[in-house]
Amino acid sequence: MPQREHAAIEVTGFAWVPPFARGRVRDLRVRWALEEIGLDYATRHISAVERPPAYFGEQPYGQVPYYREGEIEMFESGAIVLHIAEKDERLLPRDPAGRARAITWLISALNSVEPYVMNIMTIDHFCVGQDWAVLRRPAMVEMMERRLAHLSAALGDKDWLEGRFTAADLMMVDVLRILRPDQLSIPQNLQDYVARGEGRPAFQAALAAQMADFLSDEEGMTA
Amino acid sequence: MPQREHAAIEVTGFAWVPPFARGRVRDLRVRWALEEIGLDYATRHISAVERPPAYFGEQPYGQVPYYREGEIEMFESGAIVLHIAEKDERLLPRDPAGRARAITWLISALNSVEPYVMNIMTIDHFCVGQDWAVLRRPAMVEMMERRLAHLSAALGDKDWLEGRFTAADLMMVDVLRILRPDQLSIPQNLQDYVARGEGRPAFQAALAAQMADFLSDEEGMTA
Repeated sequence: MPQREHAAIEVTGFAWVPPFARGRVRDLRVRWALEEIGLDYATRHISAVERPPAYFGEQPYGQVPYYREGEIEMFESGAIVLHIAEKDERLLPRDPAGRARAITWLISALNSVEPYVMNIMTIDHFCVGQDWAVLRRPAMVEMMERRLAHLSAALGDKDWLEGRFTAADLMMVDVLRILRPDQLSIPQNLQDYVARGEGRPAFQAALAAQMADFLSDEEGMTA
Repeated sequence: MPQREHAAIEVTGFAWVPPFARGRVRDLRVRWALEEIGLDYATRHISAVERPPAYFGEQPYGQVPYYREGEIEMFESGAIVLHIAEKDERLLPRDPAGRARAITWLISALNSVEPYVMNIMTIDHFCVGQDWAVLRRPAMVEMMERRLAHLSAALGDKDWLEGRFTAADLMMVDVLRILRPDQLSIPQNLQDYVARGEGRPAFQAALAAQMADFLSDEEGMTA
């Protein structure tokens, strides 16, 4: 497991989040990418309950992950995963056409799929039962299902979006895995795709590392 | 103006959209990037009214732009702009730290700002007056304004996010320019930032090219 004190790469994560959010915080994507290519990293913990004001100078929205590697300082999990992917062709093909396709799908996960997923989560989790959410849900679910149908057609019977696993699949799987089949209709090939991604040893290691890093409720609520 | 038949780069745009959407369709970002570095491109027009079924084989959601350059085939305006930016340091710094920052902000525009902007547009335009939209609007505006405040603090008194214009500013300006000060409170430095971006000759050329490409209402509605 490449998580290690004093590693050359530092990634921020939240010190504590409520149980439902554990395993879903976005430093997971960065940990996963690092695990895929065996790069060591250290974790710095940020309070999600009271975000340190100085942290906004690093991450303008106060979110995690923030990433530091020597003089390179980044935020946005998508940008960080792309940066890590550029280090190793296991995550990003070296041929120009394959590289372009992987970056296309990585951005597609971030800009054409995740905004819909977040809206579904807002309705089904953060605002569940609120009048506006009840009224809005059918249209939002319909839009999400239409998008999933298009994505399902693009994936077809392939294991990964462009045939072999890349950073694009890492991102798309992490975006899609938040959705549950009891919320809305998820095409079977997408369910299998998510299971395939979650089954990768690097994903499991990243998930275990994120989960292990959270303080207990008692520690966290008073941190 | 680099729009030219039989250019090596082909970009898709919609043949016709309603007047409110003109100047806002996402091929604008790609045209803008190409204009900034003077690269020729040809435009292929797709019907937005009846999307050709075969087009979904290129662009899985039936949207524009789709981009072709020899064996490189891409979609997602963010990915295409990044691809174009990699050709020229005027759009993407060559030093690793500067490059990482520009990509960070480009992704930030796509994943941390645009989803909020789209939700505001859904409420204020596509679903204006609907019961759910009226109920939801105050919270959505508050979230958007908080995000804008953070972005405003990050920009400070700089002209561009990292000092000099890059593809990140191109993307952030095109995301932010959709918002209007009569909709919600937009910090003055962000309003000036958007005006600065829209004032660039390359933006003006891209906008004029998109506007000139649309069929008239009469032609478009029956196309």
